[in-house]
Amino acid sequence: MTRVVFQPGGHSVEAEEGVTLMQAAREAGLALENQCGGLGTCGKCKVLVLRGRVGPPGPAEMEALSRLELEQGLRLACQTRALGNRVEALVPPRSLVMEQRYQLEGASTAFRPQPPVTRRMVKVDLPALGDARSDLERLRQALTAQGVRLGEPGLDALRKLPETLRGDRGEIQALLRGSRLLDLRPPADRRPLYGLAVDLGTSKIALILTDLESGAAAETAGLMNPQLPFGEDVVSRLDYALRGKGQARRLREIVVEAVNRATRDLCGRAGIRPRDILEVSLVGNTAMHHIFLGLPLRQLAFSPYVPAVSEALDIRAADLGLETLPGAIAHLPAPLAGYVGSDHLAAVLASRLYREKGVCLLADLGTNTELALKTPQGITCCSCASGPAFEGGSLRHGMRAAEGAVEEVRITPEGEIRYSTVGGKEPLGICGSGALEALAAMREAGTVEPGGRIIPGRPGVTKEDDELGFRIARRHVRSGKPRGWVTLSQRDVRELQKAKGAVRAGIEMLLDHAGLTAADLDKVILAGAFGNYLDPASLMEIAMLPPLPLRRIVQVGNAAGVGAREMLCSMRARRRAQRLAAEMRYLELATYPRAELFFASCMLLSEEALQSFLRKWRRP
Amino acid sequence: MTRVVFQPGGHSVEAEEGVTLMQAAREAGLALENQCGGLGTCGKCKVLVLRGRVGPPGPAEMEALSRLELEQGLRLACQTRALGNRVEALVPPRSLVMEQRYQLEGASTAFRPQPPVTRRMVKVDLPALGDARSDLERLRQALTAQGVRLGEPGLDALRKLPETLRGDRGEIQALLRGSRLLDLRPPADRRPLYGLAVDLGTSKIALILTDLESGAAAETAGLMNPQLPFGEDVVSRLDYALRGKGQARRLREIVVEAVNRATRDLCGRAGIRPRDILEVSLVGNTAMHHIFLGLPLRQLAFSPYVPAVSEALDIRAADLGLETLPGAIAHLPAPLAGYVGSDHLAAVLASRLYREKGVCLLADLGTNTELALKTPQGITCCSCASGPAFEGGSLRHGMRAAEGAVEEVRITPEGEIRYSTVGGKEPLGICGSGALEALAAMREAGTVEPGGRIIPGRPGVTKEDDELGFRIARRHVRSGKPRGWVTLSQRDVRELQKAKGAVRAGIEMLLDHAGLTAADLDKVILAGAFGNYLDPASLMEIAMLPPLPLRRIVQVGNAAGVGAREMLCSMRARRRAQRLAAEMRYLELATYPRAELFFASCMLLSEEALQSFLRKWRRP
Repeated sequence: MTRVVFQPGGHSVEAEEGVTLMQAAREAGLALENQCGGLGTCGKCKVLVLRGRVGPPGPAEMEALSRLELEQGLRLACQTRALGNRVEALVPPRSLVMEQRYQLEGASTAFRPQPPVTRRMVKVDLPALGDARSDLERLRQALTAQGVRLGEPGLDALRKLPETLRGDRGEIQALLRGSRLLDLRPPADRRPLYGLAVDLGTSKIALILTDLESGAAAETAGLMNPQLPFGEDVVSRLDYALRGKGQARRLREIVVEAVNRATRDLCGRAGIRPRDILEVSLVGNTAMHHIFLGLPLRQLAFSPYVPAVSEALDIRAADLGLETLPGAIAHLPAPLAGYVGSDHLAAVLASRLYREKGVCLLADLGTNTELALKTPQGITCCSCASGPAFEGGSLRHGMRAAEGAVEEVRITPEGEIRYSTVGGKEPLGICGSGALEALAAMREAGTVEPGGRIIPGRPGVTKEDDELGFRIARRHVRSGKPRGWVTLSQRDVRELQKAKGAVRAGIEMLLDHAGLTAADLDKVILAGAFGNYLDPASLMEIAMLPPLPLRRIVQVGNAAGVGAREMLCSMRARRRAQRLAAEMRYLELATYPRAELFFASCMLLSEEALQSFLRKWRRP
Repeated sequence: MTRVVFQPGGHSVEAEEGVTLMQAAREAGLALENQCGGLGTCGKCKVLVLRGRVGPPGPAEMEALSRLELEQGLRLACQTRALGNRVEALVPPRSLVMEQRYQLEGASTAFRPQPPVTRRMVKVDLPALGDARSDLERLRQALTAQGVRLGEPGLDALRKLPETLRGDRGEIQALLRGSRLLDLRPPADRRPLYGLAVDLGTSKIALILTDLESGAAAETAGLMNPQLPFGEDVVSRLDYALRGKGQARRLREIVVEAVNRATRDLCGRAGIRPRDILEVSLVGNTAMHHIFLGLPLRQLAFSPYVPAVSEALDIRAADLGLETLPGAIAHLPAPLAGYVGSDHLAAVLASRLYREKGVCLLADLGTNTELALKTPQGITCCSCASGPAFEGGSLRHGMRAAEGAVEEVRITPEGEIRYSTVGGKEPLGICGSGALEALAAMREAGTVEPGGRIIPGRPGVTKEDDELGFRIARRHVRSGKPRGWVTLSQRDVRELQKAKGAVRAGIEMLLDHAGLTAADLDKVILAGAFGNYLDPASLMEIAMLPPLPLRRIVQVGNAAGVGAREMLCSMRARRRAQRLAAEMRYLELATYPRAELFFASCMLLSEEALQSFLRKWRRP
């Protein structure tokens, strides 16, 4: 018998020796991608063997995995048999079927709730002639007898007090927020206390209806940010908002309305009303945060990019237009800087970056990428304008990671181009992660130069409209018929170079600033929903990430959302976040010495070439 | 030369010996009523000579003043000449022309403001690259350097911060409420800081736009409570509200709307916008208070008449629907009991009752009359349902004290009936104070028995529709032609007896409860706008007030409004009021031993008869 353990969740199972890791995972409750039915041809069930003895890679794996992947110890779960007593393997998020990716988020960051709202059962004296005390006075005295100080009450709660008091002969369930009476319930009402965590991204909004007392997510929703038509990225969104007060108000109103609509929907699914939501936490980049609060944006949009406020705020949800209990508090954690928002703070919190002992990098990848470098001296963060390429935007055939998007690309040693799509559907276009993989495959096959030039004559390379390009798949249209090709054009390659170069340059400047180099990195944490779709080996192939053993790379998914949920349910987490916000330093890349040289060299697609340039202007 | 001093304002003037007090008053800036042009026939310029030598009463005064008034030292200012060095006289409010009555309110209760909102001039560092501090952070640090702690800011202020900061090169005027940033202004903006004091009466609403820093009233407005059509008194108003949630909400909405409309009007007169109002204080009886807050009313309307809340509340004005600065705080002082509201607390505060050394009674007269008795042991208050008779309601020809209302009635020794009206206009009806005076005149002339029966055959007594009545004046209608008579009917006399009896019974029970009798009273303070129209001598004539030298009776006008203004402008006054609310005791008259006997005997119109009954059931 063999024990097989899967990380990061720690799922484990006892199985016959020789079991495939695919089989063992299924028995442990993990559904791995398996489009080829275990033939080893789709290449989607990659796992990293961390410990224990397994059978050697077979011919299917030799073909499905890149050289770099094989070197790093990546295997196909369907082809790998567990031998010996115990085998431990790391499952990258993208090897899981879609539904399970989200569920695992935050699995590694269990926390003990310390909710902002608590309930108290209390027996209040009934009113009587000769007892001149008001209802509130009697409640206060009953609470004082329990050692609970009651401050000024919320108007909502006060309005319910007389009837609730008289409903159950003085028995009452008081919902308290600190010393503030927030709401009242009959004593028998044992429904959970709900809160709402919101991660307000430039492109996507995530809502998590959460049980404040257990910290568990009850219902979740993801929606596109309805501001998208007004600018794909933060800069163009700010541009629009600065045209006038009406524009800024409009951006605010449509996003509030979208959150309210999604909240109503979430509540409907949970069988509650929006006014049962007792607390809100909301994270987002600083521009989203300011727009949501109705704060001025001009000072944020122009150098020196100063936020109006950079501290945590507790604002009544009703003041923000949110449909919750009117007296509910919306907690907005501190934005860290003009271009590093509270979402990054939430990611730092949820990823536990602050606990890392060595040198650790957190990268929250997206339209705007935030980086945080933890060294024994503390945490420094920065922002990289990676642009919309990662989300599939700005690419010729770019699309979001929806069904039909090419998400994996391989070039066999024979020059054959293989690909897979999201959901296994006919190819419609290519998503950001697919484009990065295509670029990595091109690099490995020698189809593109380290400088980014596509080499004519290599397999798949064509010329269309006078522009070189790499053909990946016949492109289908709505009718389902092929029409043209899904291509990565020379211009697309440049876009990807700029995007990945911005991230890598950020990493290098952070390290340089700390007197370190990439060789000093002990660990890299990839966060962001987008980060979950990425193949770290491919990122190294194109020198977006510095070379590192794959086991030192952790993919944690939407850490900002997890952090928002943690701060929603835990006052301890809020205090921790406040300390982090005060201690973290911000590095402005735009004014970093020789920044433009860092950017230029980091656009190179070969680690070797990149390093040879970097050595020249790194600090001595 | 003689110095003539007029109280309570202390107005004084140096004049030739032998000057009439009317003349001296005019020179001192006080305009006394003078409808007869100084002939001594209208009887409206009554003053009480407190000190100094004056000429003896002449024949005009013998006729214009009642026996009791002459005994007490009341004189007609137009007939009284000052002799000797110094004469001091007390001017009852109703001897002043209408416009001056209000101005004198609160003249005796000067206070030093300690405003809730203060301004701070501060120079904030301008933003710079490499300075990662947010606008708020820089403001906070600049304030800290001045020794001012800045807590969490208001959203309104935060929204103005970036632009205000950049408008005057970092110079800024911060308006602070405690440690909370409430609003921002350019440094050169020296406009006053405005607050709004509201006295929410059952019948009338008074609004006082006030300079928070000086405590001075800038503009005032009085309006009828628009809830009047839904019930003249508190009980019928509650009845209506209890028919359903819609009804209660409607009462709330119309009064909020009326306050907002009046606020806009006040602001227009002062040349400001409603959002320049930075603080609100609002007093009212407990039912008005609960309706205004949207609190449930059922527990208040039925025994044991428990308020939902009996402590001071600070609620955001915007939450109450008030059109002010959205973040402005509305301070609602503590209601004292179900039927003694925060308006009475305000009156206790403004009248300085708590400072009185001896035994002092404060009566705030109106549709509902609140009494407070100060003894060396403390203050006890109670409520008397005096009903609408005092406001002219429920009387056959009753009307409010508007032009054409009979306000003074005398019966000459020859049996001639004399009267005067508000504004000297043709008589249209009789107001509450006029009715009480008519009753006093009837008592003096022997037209009504101590028990209240009108005596047939006496001058002016007629029988109409089988009911005895006392004819006062030919009644004019809109066209200006006489039509019938303004009459005080037997039923009216009963109504007045019930109203005055309720007040007197309250006084007697308060005294009885304290182990005292009316003979122990050192001072009586009459408050309420209605109290200013009353002639204290008449109130004694009908045994509504116990016999007392007139100089020991002080009329302070709308003390509740003055107290509301004081609490608006002074945190010290709020703390004082909070201590008073905690210390004052409430006496429930409904359950007082032998209450019904107190009520019955106090309906008697003769002090002697009343006393002979009271002696029987007073506590030994």
